[in-house]
Amino acid sequence: MAERSAVVARDVDAHPERFRVLTGERPTGLLHLGHYFGTIIERVRLQEAGVETVLVLADYQVITDRDTMANVRQNVYSAVLDYLAAGLDPEATTIFTHSSVPALNQLIIPFLSLVTEAELRRNPTVKSELASSNRALSGLLLTYPVHQAADILFCKGNLVPVGKDNLPHVEMTRVIARRFNERYGDVFPVPDALITASPEIPGLDGRKMSKSYGNAIALSMTEDETAAAIRRTITDIDRLISFDPQSRPGVSALLSTAALCLGKRPEEIAAQIGEKGSSELKRLTTDAVNSFLAPLRARRAELAQDSGLASEVLRRGNDRANSIAATTLDEVRTAMGTLY
Amino acid sequence: MAERSAVVARDVDAHPERFRVLTGERPTGLLHLGHYFGTIIERVRLQEAGVETVLVLADYQVITDRDTMANVRQNVYSAVLDYLAAGLDPEATTIFTHSSVPALNQLIIPFLSLVTEAELRRNPTVKSELASSNRALSGLLLTYPVHQAADILFCKGNLVPVGKDNLPHVEMTRVIARRFNERYGDVFPVPDALITASPEIPGLDGRKMSKSYGNAIALSMTEDETAAAIRRTITDIDRLISFDPQSRPGVSALLSTAALCLGKRPEEIAAQIGEKGSSELKRLTTDAVNSFLAPLRARRAELAQDSGLASEVLRRGNDRANSIAATTLDEVRTAMGTLY
Repeated sequence: MAERSAVVARDVDAHPERFRVLTGERPTGLLHLGHYFGTIIERVRLQEAGVETVLVLADYQVITDRDTMANVRQNVYSAVLDYLAAGLDPEATTIFTHSSVPALNQLIIPFLSLVTEAELRRNPTVKSELASSNRALSGLLLTYPVHQAADILFCKGNLVPVGKDNLPHVEMTRVIARRFNERYGDVFPVPDALITASPEIPGLDGRKMSKSYGNAIALSMTEDETAAAIRRTITDIDRLISFDPQSRPGVSALLSTAALCLGKRPEEIAAQIGEKGSSELKRLTTDAVNSFLAPLRARRAELAQDSGLASEVLRRGNDRANSIAATTLDEVRTAMGTLY
Repeated sequence: MAERSAVVARDVDAHPERFRVLTGERPTGLLHLGHYFGTIIERVRLQEAGVETVLVLADYQVITDRDTMANVRQNVYSAVLDYLAAGLDPEATTIFTHSSVPALNQLIIPFLSLVTEAELRRNPTVKSELASSNRALSGLLLTYPVHQAADILFCKGNLVPVGKDNLPHVEMTRVIARRFNERYGDVFPVPDALITASPEIPGLDGRKMSKSYGNAIALSMTEDETAAAIRRTITDIDRLISFDPQSRPGVSALLSTAALCLGKRPEEIAAQIGEKGSSELKRLTTDAVNSFLAPLRARRAELAQDSGLASEVLRRGNDRANSIAATTLDEVRTAMGTLY
């Protein structure tokens, strides 16, 4: 599938009009630098290249690994502002919330008939989420790959940007599309994965940047909040700064962060700081992040003046997603013989 | 739960206006005498008593145990005519098809987060369907109890007529309603089961009457088709007719069928036939069934003259179900904080 992805990537450049991308995320917290470098830049690039994109804020997926929907609405509104500030154009990119499109969600039912419980349990994401959750396997987590298939197929998405870890999701969607088409007739494209080689940005403690680890720099932070978050990073007393993620996770995370924002390599930054120690590293990183995010944050502040903007963007995105979903569901019901 | 059901049954008689019944079936074939005595009579009784009823034709559930939707549309239309001919009034009883109500189906997603995979696997219906199916456990069959919960709760049904075997379904629905209310606030009633002590009518071979066994007398058969089906019943050469389901399954099935249609006991019918043998038994049973069904079949033939009737009934039922579902889904989304 990785080889195929490379072929597809060339195709996207040559014929952007042939593709519809489905992408999205779970609004479990505020969007941060990890999202920016990991997915948002790529989304803007695809949009600029003329590829139509559908972006789902998968609110229901928040409860795959927790029992509360607290802050989801705020996270959704914040993400919309982040997207717009980063350059996504809601006219070109349909931004919608999962819970607002019942006709999409209905697809889950016929799709569930096309996969076995064993196939769902074998899915690597289900397995790893389960292992890390300390919870009993819920019906929602078990069926998560099917929900993703519905997200991708409701809009006949034929291109799904993923990190390598998420290839099994696309594989499951391909299986479901093929089985549906075989059983009921051609309705769905069999989507391709577009493996994104985006740089990994570590959290401030060297672990994966994640809202739940409290090690993230949110796009919506102020400059002072950014400085405070960086100041809290645990470094060490060795004044000679060096890039060594294994034994110096905090120092190296700061170096990686500054490097990405400055378009340099972490080792270069380390050499530049030399023996000036952690405080100079933190000062430099704070400057790098705040300068890098300044234009985005300025646009974001401007957009935030219009207090109804995010909900208006969602209203239009949800309308459009509902219209796409209604068309697809009609085709599905026609194929299955359940239009009365 | 059986004791509680007896209390509820008295309540229904005293205060029918306090209840909304959810009932229904999978349109896997034509409705037959087993349905008539098992559920349809009870539905008409509840309707006459002034209890509001919502009846789902669960078309998606057809593919829990097979890979084809062949004939589902015809079965649905036929069932609607059977219901009307049997006395259900579509103004009082909302008759709808599962696949026509996306807002109902969306409820499955939050509900899936409220149950564990282990709870689903332990469900007796899931276990017995799985055991009898010779198929791998599909995602649809595994999550079947959650779909039933959505069917019941979308209309805030608080009363579910079931045979004793189906009590675990209602129990799972009660669990889901309670967990949802605890987590997000009071939205759903916790429904009660109404255990129906309906007489079991065996198929013509003594097994359970089932479309798939080919041992059923469909309500929509002609008198000649009924006679032919009864003629095909395998009996024996002992001319003394006796009721003995263990060693004389065919003879006893015919006795049971005739008895139900004539309002007598099978032993009475046997005594009446005495030594006149199987051919007299078949003649008597054919007459009993055809006479019993004559008024229903006459009404049915009349209704069938209007070729658009079934689809018009469904259109109105689906409209009403969609309106109920939209209201409930709004309440669910408000409670979960996902209205944007």
